[in-house]
Amino acid sequence: MAKQDRAIRTRQAILEAAATVFDERGYDAAKLSDILELAQVTKGALYFHFESKEDLAHAVIDAQVSAVPEPLPQVSKLQEFVDIGMVFAHRLTHDGLLRGSVRLTLDQSGHELNRAGPYREWTELNQRVLEEAKERGELLPHADPAEVAPLVVGSYAGLNLMSQALGSQRADMESWASVLYRHVLPSIAVPAVLAMLDMEPGRGLRALNGA
Amino acid sequence: MAKQDRAIRTRQAILEAAATVFDERGYDAAKLSDILELAQVTKGALYFHFESKEDLAHAVIDAQVSAVPEPLPQVSKLQEFVDIGMVFAHRLTHDGLLRGSVRLTLDQSGHELNRAGPYREWTELNQRVLEEAKERGELLPHADPAEVAPLVVGSYAGLNLMSQALGSQRADMESWASVLYRHVLPSIAVPAVLAMLDMEPGRGLRALNGA
Repeated sequence: MAKQDRAIRTRQAILEAAATVFDERGYDAAKLSDILELAQVTKGALYFHFESKEDLAHAVIDAQVSAVPEPLPQVSKLQEFVDIGMVFAHRLTHDGLLRGSVRLTLDQSGHELNRAGPYREWTELNQRVLEEAKERGELLPHADPAEVAPLVVGSYAGLNLMSQALGSQRADMESWASVLYRHVLPSIAVPAVLAMLDMEPGRGLRALNGA
Repeated sequence: MAKQDRAIRTRQAILEAAATVFDERGYDAAKLSDILELAQVTKGALYFHFESKEDLAHAVIDAQVSAVPEPLPQVSKLQEFVDIGMVFAHRLTHDGLLRGSVRLTLDQSGHELNRAGPYREWTELNQRVLEEAKERGELLPHADPAEVAPLVVGSYAGLNLMSQALGSQRADMESWASVLYRHVLPSIAVPAVLAMLDMEPGRGLRALNGA
């Protein structure tokens, strides 16, 4: 294995270990020593890749958007819009890096962390797909992508938080995402497109499988 | 002033000071000494009313639901449903106790705190009003109060959190609540009721003024 490959793998191992520890304990209570132990790396290796706990946390937060590929092309742009959230909900059930990233975004401890990034980036992605849907005539005349995109991003975050507070550990995010889209899409989609949308739980996996 | 009145006022002063400190710093970083100073009470007075910081935080959390009166009767039950969130958004702009309570509910630090209460109670209140709307024929046939109530509660929490993360300090919760209701109500309300609903920013104050 080339040196560069090894460095990339080490960085990824640290990121994933950090995400797990942040997810379990939150930012303030997370200890670098626990991250080192879980990742099985030395302190030197960690500081080679990340300047500080804060820097590491920001890298975990950023992974939420950067590590997630855009949805595959679908018959309608509104299906692609729905797929953004349904695929993410599906990935949350088994991807520890995403879970840690979401936890840090929703967490309010660690005042030095800037959590605006994911909200902005998810909003931009959603808004772009909604603008495309509008250009194709898939939206009702009054539907405003600049209003709907942040609505869906903020609501999604809150359903995630509520699901954690009620002790369900995000396992039900696929159901909540489905409930959210089924109640918002009728107010923005033209009927012919609305009737064709798959917004049911399980859509995330179906989308990844090219359905 | 009778002894009992004084005790009630002291308790309220402590609650409000605690809410302010929790709102500014979060649970973990909040210090009892800062709360004592802000409330201008002695340690003895605080411990007469509250067993611990945790107990105090739970009392602040509980105030969110218990201190808020139910919405006034309106022509439609769905207007009452909308008013729950619009009045709360209006109160958030100037009620420090509510702000502190919401902060603690959304905060993920302080692992010993049970944050499920407000989600459950807001959901129950919303669901009850939606059931009444259903009985009166205000809901579309497929609309399910047990699904819509938690959707609105969780989404509302997330919009609040996003608004904080983006630095807008909840001043815009009235706009976000309006966006949320305007996009969810079309999927649950019969057209004749939908057309009559006031879901615009400023509705909170109008509802409190009996409009």
